[in-house]
Formats: sequence, structure tokens, C-alpha cells
Amino acid sequence: MSISLIVLAAGQGTRMNSDLPKVLHQIAGAPMLVHALRAGSALSPDRTVVVTGHGSQAVQAAAQDHDPEILTVHQATQDGTGHAVAQAETALAGYDGDAIVLYGDTPFISEDTLHRMVAARAQHDVVVLGFEAADPGRYGRLVMSGDTLEKIVEFRDADAATRAITLCNSGVIAASAPVLFDLIRAVTNDNAAGEYYLTDIVAIARDRGLSATAIACPEAETMGINSRAELAVAEAAFQARARATALEDGVTLTAPETVHFAYDTVLGRDTIVEPNVVFGPGVTVESGAHIKAFSHLEGCHVSRGAVVGPYARLRPGAELAEDTRIGNFVEIKNALIGEGAKVNHLSYIGDASVGEASNIGAGTITCNYDGVMKHRTEIGARVFVGSNTMLVAPVKLGDESMTGSGSVITSDVPAGALAIARSPQANKPGMARKLFEILKSRRAKQAKEAG
Amino acid sequence: MSISLIVLAAGQGTRMNSDLPKVLHQIAGAPMLVHALRAGSALSPDRTVVVTGHGSQAVQAAAQDHDPEILTVHQATQDGTGHAVAQAETALAGYDGDAIVLYGDTPFISEDTLHRMVAARAQHDVVVLGFEAADPGRYGRLVMSGDTLEKIVEFRDADAATRAITLCNSGVIAASAPVLFDLIRAVTNDNAAGEYYLTDIVAIARDRGLSATAIACPEAETMGINSRAELAVAEAAFQARARATALEDGVTLTAPETVHFAYDTVLGRDTIVEPNVVFGPGVTVESGAHIKAFSHLEGCHVSRGAVVGPYARLRPGAELAEDTRIGNFVEIKNALIGEGAKVNHLSYIGDASVGEASNIGAGTITCNYDGVMKHRTEIGARVFVGSNTMLVAPVKLGDESMTGSGSVITSDVPAGALAIARSPQANKPGMARKLFEILKSRRAKQAKEAG
Amino acid sequence: MSISLIVLAAGQGTRMNSDLPKVLHQIAGAPMLVHALRAGSALSPDRTVVVTGHGSQAVQAAAQDHDPEILTVHQATQDGTGHAVAQAETALAGYDGDAIVLYGDTPFISEDTLHRMVAARAQHDVVVLGFEAADPGRYGRLVMSGDTLEKIVEFRDADAATRAITLCNSGVIAASAPVLFDLIRAVTNDNAAGEYYLTDIVAIARDRGLSATAIACPEAETMGINSRAELAVAEAAFQARARATALEDGVTLTAPETVHFAYDTVLGRDTIVEPNVVFGPGVTVESGAHIKAFSHLEGCHVSRGAVVGPYARLRPGAELAEDTRIGNFVEIKNALIGEGAKVNHLSYIGDASVGEASNIGAGTITCNYDGVMKHRTEIGARVFVGSNTMLVAPVKLGDESMTGSGSVITSDVPAGALAIARSPQANKPGMARKLFEILKSRRAKQAKEAG
Repeated sequence: MSISLIVLAAGQGTRMNSDLPKVLHQIAGAPMLVHALRAGSALSPDRTVVVTGHGSQAVQAAAQDHDPEILTVHQATQDGTGHAVAQAETALAGYDGDAIVLYGDTPFISEDTLHRMVAARAQHDVVVLGFEAADPGRYGRLVMSGDTLEKIVEFRDADAATRAITLCNSGVIAASAPVLFDLIRAVTNDNAAGEYYLTDIVAIARDRGLSATAIACPEAETMGINSRAELAVAEAAFQARARATALEDGVTLTAPETVHFAYDTVLGRDTIVEPNVVFGPGVTVESGAHIKAFSHLEGCHVSRGAVVGPYARLRPGAELAEDTRIGNFVEIKNALIGEGAKVNHLSYIGDASVGEASNIGAGTITCNYDGVMKHRTEIGARVFVGSNTMLVAPVKLGDESMTGSGSVITSDVPAGALAIARSPQANKPGMARKLFEILKSRRAKQAKEAG
Repeated sequence: MSISLIVLAAGQGTRMNSDLPKVLHQIAGAPMLVHALRAGSALSPDRTVVVTGHGSQAVQAAAQDHDPEILTVHQATQDGTGHAVAQAETALAGYDGDAIVLYGDTPFISEDTLHRMVAARAQHDVVVLGFEAADPGRYGRLVMSGDTLEKIVEFRDADAATRAITLCNSGVIAASAPVLFDLIRAVTNDNAAGEYYLTDIVAIARDRGLSATAIACPEAETMGINSRAELAVAEAAFQARARATALEDGVTLTAPETVHFAYDTVLGRDTIVEPNVVFGPGVTVESGAHIKAFSHLEGCHVSRGAVVGPYARLRPGAELAEDTRIGNFVEIKNALIGEGAKVNHLSYIGDASVGEASNIGAGTITCNYDGVMKHRTEIGARVFVGSNTMLVAPVKLGDESMTGSGSVITSDVPAGALAIARSPQANKPGMARKLFEILKSRRAKQAKEAG
Repeated sequence: MSISLIVLAAGQGTRMNSDLPKVLHQIAGAPMLVHALRAGSALSPDRTVVVTGHGSQAVQAAAQDHDPEILTVHQATQDGTGHAVAQAETALAGYDGDAIVLYGDTPFISEDTLHRMVAARAQHDVVVLGFEAADPGRYGRLVMSGDTLEKIVEFRDADAATRAITLCNSGVIAASAPVLFDLIRAVTNDNAAGEYYLTDIVAIARDRGLSATAIACPEAETMGINSRAELAVAEAAFQARARATALEDGVTLTAPETVHFAYDTVLGRDTIVEPNVVFGPGVTVESGAHIKAFSHLEGCHVSRGAVVGPYARLRPGAELAEDTRIGNFVEIKNALIGEGAKVNHLSYIGDASVGEASNIGAGTITCNYDGVMKHRTEIGARVFVGSNTMLVAPVKLGDESMTGSGSVITSDVPAGALAIARSPQANKPGMARKLFEILKSRRAKQAKEAG
């Protein structure tokens, strides 16, 4: 069946206490809106319509940054969920497939749940997603009769028997798009808040003789986020699941609770991850790599047998071939490090390529920025870059070349050549002792003057 | 009403297993004594008297380092809380306002609680601070009759009915100072420990027809600390509260449980703090700054829009203007970084100023120490400092000047000038290959000799 | 009594989802097999026999790396615990003392428990280690009659009354070696799995009129590890114990939950350890040292009064004398740092010695590797190494010598001498502004061409 998504993302999120629109607050390195969109994309939707409101420009940008095909519509006034969904009608003009309403602040709906909703739609006109609440509190209750959803009763309208129901309303709803919009047109705002509630369509549908049902998912999937404290709880829930999955997949996490994953982190079997490692978005690590403590990776690829850290920072575009070694206080950005190459200490390698089996000495810096533009450094295979070499890009070092420690390399070095840029050492006998005496007497004089 | 504080800080804290006096062990970067003093200072006390004993010199120094006006008196022998308070009498000679007795190892009494004690004093001669204990255990019990405190009964002297009372004695007590000292003079040490107990003054006061009452505060406020395990629990409690408060105040903490605050950390709304950040004392961060993972800040100020880290260390006196960027493996100490300036990689900037929009290349070091004294480096606006520049202080770089990568700058650079100190590069064809051969044959020879 | 150990370490650990044999997965920096061996070594065993199977070469290597005296025998097919123990018979040929069967995946048996088993052996022919299970689940039950162990009943064979027993079988067993092997010869594999169960020897022993007993240990000691999730739980349990012990021993852990110990970490009283510190194997820290946040130590010794970090990495062979100071972004490897010496910023000191009271400037690197071999750097006492000095080893700096900032030192510096290798600074007036103009126009041109 053809499916489209309507994702509600207009709320301000007053309780977030933030200038950032609520749905752009991040979980595991992605806006919560993107989590909802990623879940929905499992249905291969025909169209995806995001309903924006507060901060609509930023929300639109984030949605289309995730997927340029996404349509956005602006809800000028926040008049309730029914009103929000109604805004999507023109964007779905001429479309007669199904629509599923998702929420930009409900990031954890699973693909399995969405597939089950779609399956239920084969039997029913309207499908509502419910969850068995551990503490139903003030959630709306789903009143079922067999597999028929009779009605949704708001907590304030519920009698004691209805309040005893633990199957609660998540707000996620599926129906044929034309039916959905038709039902919404019948919704009124005749309630205390003066809002148009999407959930009212169930009663309207039943009045019209349409069938409705509810399916249930784990409560964790329907977690909505309304404050930063809830955001932190959601982040922790994501991380707990990601850590458990990694362990099952054969990753060693010495201290799982100290490893922070992004939404898309991929770690191979028998990878070892030591305590205090942060993965930003876009990281893949192959089997058998070893990520040591205090490392920070984003937008990079680490191949089999590579050893990273401690205190290594891999930035976007870092590509480590097999058996590479990136050591402490080393930053790699937009650079290919060839098989077996080593950058062990205190270096910055950016906008560069390093050939296989090359050794980059401590304190090496690719001077990739001239104050205006960035330039590339190309280092060949089996090169020995001496400690504290400055590689002033654009510059190339040929295979099996070498640089002398402390050299500033401004022009290319041929293969097999030694490049050196260094002043000769002069030892001045007794001068150190003299200098110390001078400095100490100067300090004594200053102290006297100050005193 | 005029208030003075008497803070008991004489205990050794045997269970701490430490040479440091108990009250000097720290929570959130401040000695627990200072936490107690800060709480008390909310009452704008006329005088504050700290009663010292074990490690009295160090305790006195810490107290007066916090506030030079604080008086200290020495309790030569630890003969009980009543005896300790009595030591404060001479320091409060001629003072006829109120006195509140606090404890240097009870750091979490809130300002609100103290204000409520003061309010209660308007109605009663003696006010005792109690708490409803979840597990009353061996605490002394407060026997109330209406709002009158009848007596304090030690656990060992309590019958079953009294032991069933859950309102327990915190030891914090308020009274008119002359009354307090007068009551204490009537306290005897006729008990198993041979000590003078402050709590005995309640019974004496009631005998003399004075009125007494108790007010209750949350148990968390009266947490006393007697071991390092309890200290760790107190630290964790402080951190949990600080994290929750930050979230409420609109700070994003990706992983709150990994962020460590100091007692005085101030973070603006919409600041983002990534995992594993440590705040030492004296940090203020303005709204919208971004503190990345693995950063360490103390005694510094971070302005709006600044981005710090990962792996940035801001030491005391670091002052970051708006939109500055301090990157990985960078240490800033006692330095002003001007608006929009960048220090992105592997640098040490100490005792310096950097003008607006200047770019400090990777590996730059302010050589501020000559082995005897520290000197300043002054970098103007829009300066481009090439990678691995050594700035031998005292030295000035004028606006829009530039240094060549790898230069040691020992004298001032005029505005708009390029300073360079560099040997020319020489490429020696084939020399690298030859060197490798020599080194390898040397190693082979050594191996043979060793074998 | 003479004791030998038989340690079963043949399992593949399918649920670990790993190419590494199960018993080589690490807890606190040591393979779990080594934890079991360390526990057993408390009995000063005559012989220790490790029964290997999956990955036997690697397991043998790890065992003998821990103690070269350890014997290993290979169990070609995994036919049950009884079969595994039988493999050890030839290795214990001629030995008539006691044997205790331990498990390579049960790392937490305490010395006290083992000593209690030995003591029980004085009264009984066979001693089984049991534990009171909080949730006995599917464990085998120990049926006692007084202090006599009547039988071990597998869960599947247990009636309701037997299932109500909470004393469960750990599998650890002690007996005279000849008796043990004799009993095992009577074990059959007449069961669903077709395996030879070691536990069957209890029933056989009782049939033969031998006496058996069980002693109980805390359940935490008998924790077996079958998945990475369980490994993480075991690691967390180890760490929790290590942190509690450190606090009791008078170590200050600001945030204990963020400090990761190795199995052999030794910290002195009044040491302060800040948040986020990782100890690898082989670290001893003396009393009163201060390990700041984000530090990483392994195979090193830190003396009294030393201050380490934040962001300090001490690698194997780092030996810090009293009152040394190792600062941020500094790596020390195989180097002796003399009393009061300082390496405060951004340096790599490897294969070196630094004399007392010397000051190593920021950005100093010992160039210890020439591409083929490692060489040593020797720095005397009271030396001032200027910032960004490259020390090209082998090289010696005499006492009270000094190097100029940015120098590459390739030959020895006599005591009291100043060594300098530096090009003179040239200021080119107006050149920086010109260069910026040129770069900007070049960028504009490129942008135009690209556009």
C-alpha cells in the first residue's frame, strides 16, 4: 500500500526553555525530528510532509537537510493537532494512499511498530497506536471492544472504570489520506483549550460507521519529550539500547556506561572500545579495531586492526586504513592514513594523505591554512617525517623520503630524498649559568622596586 | 534581627583516614566548611566564628581565604559540641544578637531553612533544626508538643514510643547569643563519653521556662560527612542537584551524569555541554556557548557563541570573547582571546592577549617563562600566527601582522609586517634511502653483537 | 597440605560472539583467566594445570605469560567438565596432594573462600563450593544433611522441595588428586548432552562411603561470564569493589564512578583522583599525589607530592619522583622524571631521564626514534629546556644547561652551557598585508573560475 507521512513539528516546547525549536534538540547527534523521520522512512513513504510552526525556517532546513524531498507546510497558529494535520492537505493534494501522523518530539517509534500499523490498516479504516502505560496518569485512554477501538477518552472526561484502563493513546494515527482529511474537517474546537484535537476523529469515524482499531507498542517507543530533563532521559534510553546492542553484536565495551554513540554509529565484531569514548555522527569502525580511552570520533572510517587513542580525535573525512595507529593528542581531519602508517603523538594532520607504512613524527603539523584558503599535503609511502616537521601545504613528500626534525617544508620533496631546514646548533659554554644569574638578579631588583 | 554564626569545625574525622582536617575535604571544588559558610552568609551575619581544633591552622586559613572577616577560635581539646560552642563566647563578647550554630561537616543546609529558623526565633527562645528521617536509626529524637519542642532524647535513652518518632535532631540550633552561652554554662559532662553536649541546652531552657521549637528541613540538607564514601555520596548529591538545575535553566547537557560542576558554576541558557566536561571553581559561561566533550574549565569566562573543545583546557584568567574558538589540545591561561579569534589546535597561550579575529596556528606556544619570571605576549587584531610559532615573551605582534610557520619570534613585529625566522629547505636526493640503509645495517650489526 | 590447581579454560564462549577465547576477555586489564589464577595462587599451589581447548595456543600463552611455571593440557573435544578435569591427570602424575578445580570464566573466587575449602578438606573427602542464590533459577542444588553434602541435583531433575533449596552449586570442587581422578573415571556420559559432568563425582563418592561437604561463599564470587553483557557487569562489579576499597584506604575519589582501576592498581593514602581517570595495569601511586581529571596511567610509578594531569598520559616505564609535575597533553614513556622536575605542556618525553628541578618547556619532544631504532635522551639537573626544543637522541644535556626555544639539539650540551639552533628573525614591513591581499585575490579568482 502507498504510504505518506505527516510529521507534526510546530511546537515551541516552552518547557525546553530554549530559543531552539523543540524538535531540533538532539538525541545521539541528530535532531529528534530526524529520529522520527528515520523511523518513518522505513515505510518508504511516497511523500513526507513536515508541519512546521515555531522556528519554521530552522525546522524546514533540518528536515530538508535530512532529505531534500521532504515537503514542509507552515502552521501559522498552533490550534491543536487536528489543525496541524489539516495544514498538510494541500501538500497531499491528489494523493489517495494512506497517511500516518507522526510527531517530531516522539523520536523512538520503531519500524516494527509502523509496519504493524500498516498491517492493521488492511482491516480497519483508522488505526491508532497505543501503549500499555506503567503509570497511565493523565494520558487519554483507548476503549477497546475486541480488536475494535470504540473511542478515545481524555483523562479529564474519564470515569473511574475508564481511568482503570492502562492502554493509552500515543497520538500516532493512520488512515487513508482523503478519509483522514475528511474526518478532520468534522472536528470542532468546542473544548476548554479551544483546540482542534486529532484524536476526535476516532469518534467521528465510528459515528460514520467506519472501523477503528488500536495496536500497542512498548511504552518506551512513545516517549514524548517536553523538557531538557526528559531529553536527557531520552538520550540515556537511546544510549542504553545502543550499548546493549553493541555488546550483543560482539563489541567489547569495557565500561559501556561511559561510551556515547551517535544515532548511526557502526562498530564491527571484536572491536574494543575503552572507557570514555564519544562517537559523533557518521562513524564506522571495522572488526578488530581498538579505540582507546578518551577518544572522539565523528564522520570517519576506521579499518580492521587500527588502534586509535587514547586522546585521539578523528574529525570528518578521517579515513584510517588497516593497521594504522593514531596516538595521543593527535587530530586527523579530512585525511587518508594509509595501511600501517603511524601518527603517534601530538600532531595535526588535516587535508592530507599519508601513504602506507609511513611514520609521522611527534609534533608534526600540516599547515593547511594560509589565512584565506585550505591546501593539501600529500605524503607518500614509507616516508619518515621527523618530529616537529611543519608541512606547509600545498606540498608533496615522495615515497621513502625523510624530513629532518624541526624542519619547515615549503616545497616538494622527491622520492628517496632527505629534506632538511635547520640552523646549526651552537653551544655557548657557561652562558646558561650566566643567564640564570642575570634573570635572578633582575627579578630581585624588580621585587625590591615593587616592595 | 542581628545574627552571628558559630561554625563547629574542630573534628579530626578519624573515619576519613586522612591527614587533611575533615572540614577541608572538598565537595564540588570547595571545602565542605566553605559550603557551610556560604549557606550561613545568606543571613548576612554580623560576625562569623569558626571553632577550629584538628588542623586548626589549615582550617583557619581556609575560612579566612573564603572571607577575611571570619574570626576563628581554637578548641584545644575536643570535649563535645557544647564545649566547642563555649569557645566562641569571647569572640562574641558584647554581642547580644542571635547566634546560629552550624557544622563544618554539614554542608547542605539551605538558605531557606536558615531563614525559617530565624523566623521561628521570633516566637521561641531556642530553635532546633530537625529533619524527617527515612531511617531514623540512632539519631536523637525531637519530642514535640504542638509547635513546642519538649526535649531532645538521645537514641540510647529513648523508649520504644520515642524511638518511633521520625523527627530527628540535626544539631543546628539558634538562640540569642547571651542566652545560648548562659545555657551552655549549665551543661554538664555527666555522660558515658564525658562530653558536653550542645543539645542538652534544650532541656535546660525548658527547665528555666524558656520556649523551644523545632523546624524541619529535608533530610538531604542535614547530611553529615564522616567518611570518604559519605563524601563521595555528598558530591554525587551535589552534582545531581546542579545538573537538574542546569537542565531547568535551559542548559543542554547531553549526558548530565558525566558533567561535573563546581559549587559556583554559572551556565547561560542554551549553552550546550557535551559529555565528560569538568568545571572547576570560578567559571561563567554565557548563553549559547558550546562546550565540547572532554573539556576542563576553571576560573574562566566564556562569552556568547564561543565554541570550546573537545579537549580544551581553560585555566584561571582565560577570558574568551564572543564567537571565539578554542580547539583540541589547547591550553589557555591568564589570557584574553578577542572576539572571533581562533586557537584551534595543540597550542599553549598563557599570560597573553589575542586581538579580535586573529588566527593562532597549530602548535603555537607563548614562551612565557624564562626559568625565573613570567612575561606577557600581546597579539593584535587580525593577526595570522603561523603554525608552530614560538612567541618568546615579552613580545608584541602588531595588528594584521603575520608570522611564518616554525618561526621563533623574539622581538616585536610591527603592524602589517611579516616576521619570519627560518632556515632554507635543502633537499638531499637519495639521502633518505641511504640513511635508512645505514640505520638498518647498524641495527643488524647490534643485533648480531647482542646475539 | 599440598595443593594443586586445575583450571578449566577450554570453552569457546559462543555467546561472547568473539574470535577471542572466552577466558581471555579482560576484566580490569587482565584476562579473566588471570583473575582465576591470581585467586588460586593464594594457596601457593605446587602445580597449576590449565586445561585449554578453543584457542588453546592463545590461552596457553596468556597463562604462561602470567606464570611460566603453569602447565597446560589440551582438551581436544569439549566433552564436559569431568572430561576436562581428566585431561589434567598426566600433568599431575605422581602427585598425591589435593587438587582444586577452578574455572577460567569464574574470576572472582576470593582467597578467603579457597582457604575455607582447604580447611574443610581436613574433615571431608570431597569439598564443593556453593553459594546462596538470590534467584536460584536453573542452578544445580546442593542437598545438605548437617554439614554433609548428600548430593548435587541438577535443576531439571529436581522435585519441588529440592528446587526450594537456595544453596547452589558453583562447580568449584576440592579433593585429593588421586581420589578426584579415580572418581572421575567412574563418571558416565549417560545424559541428554552426552557429557561427563564433574559434579557427578559427589554421588559416586557418597556411594563409595567417602564424605563430602559444601561450604558457601557470597554469590558475587561465583559469577560466571558467558556474554559480553555479563562481562560488562563483572567489570562494573570489580570496579565498584575497587572504588569502595580505595575510599576506605583513604584515597579521595571525587567521582568514584568515573575512575577505572586495573586489577593491580595501588594508590596511597590521601591521594586525590579527580573525575575520569583510567588506570591500566602496573600502576602505583604514593601517598599525597594528585591525579587530575582525564589522566591515563599504565605501568608507571608516581611518587609522593607529584601532580599529574589533566590530560596526562603516563605509559609503561614512566617513573615520577617526588613533587614532579606532569601537565596537560603530555606523554611520558619509559622515562625517569627527577624530583621537582616539571613537564607542564604539550610534550613527549620517551626513553629519557630528566634530572631534579629541571623544567621542560612546552612542546618539547624527545626524538627517540630514527625510523629504525630507539635512542635515549639524558637531561641533567636544573636544566631549562626551552619551548619546542627537539632533542634528537641519543643526546645528553648537562646539569644547569639551557636550550633556546625552537632549537633542534643534535649533539650533547655541556653543563652550564646554552645550546641554540635558530635562524635570526626578519621583520618584513607591510608584507603580511600584501600577502593577505594576494591570497584574497587568488581566492576570488578561483571562485570566479569555479563559478
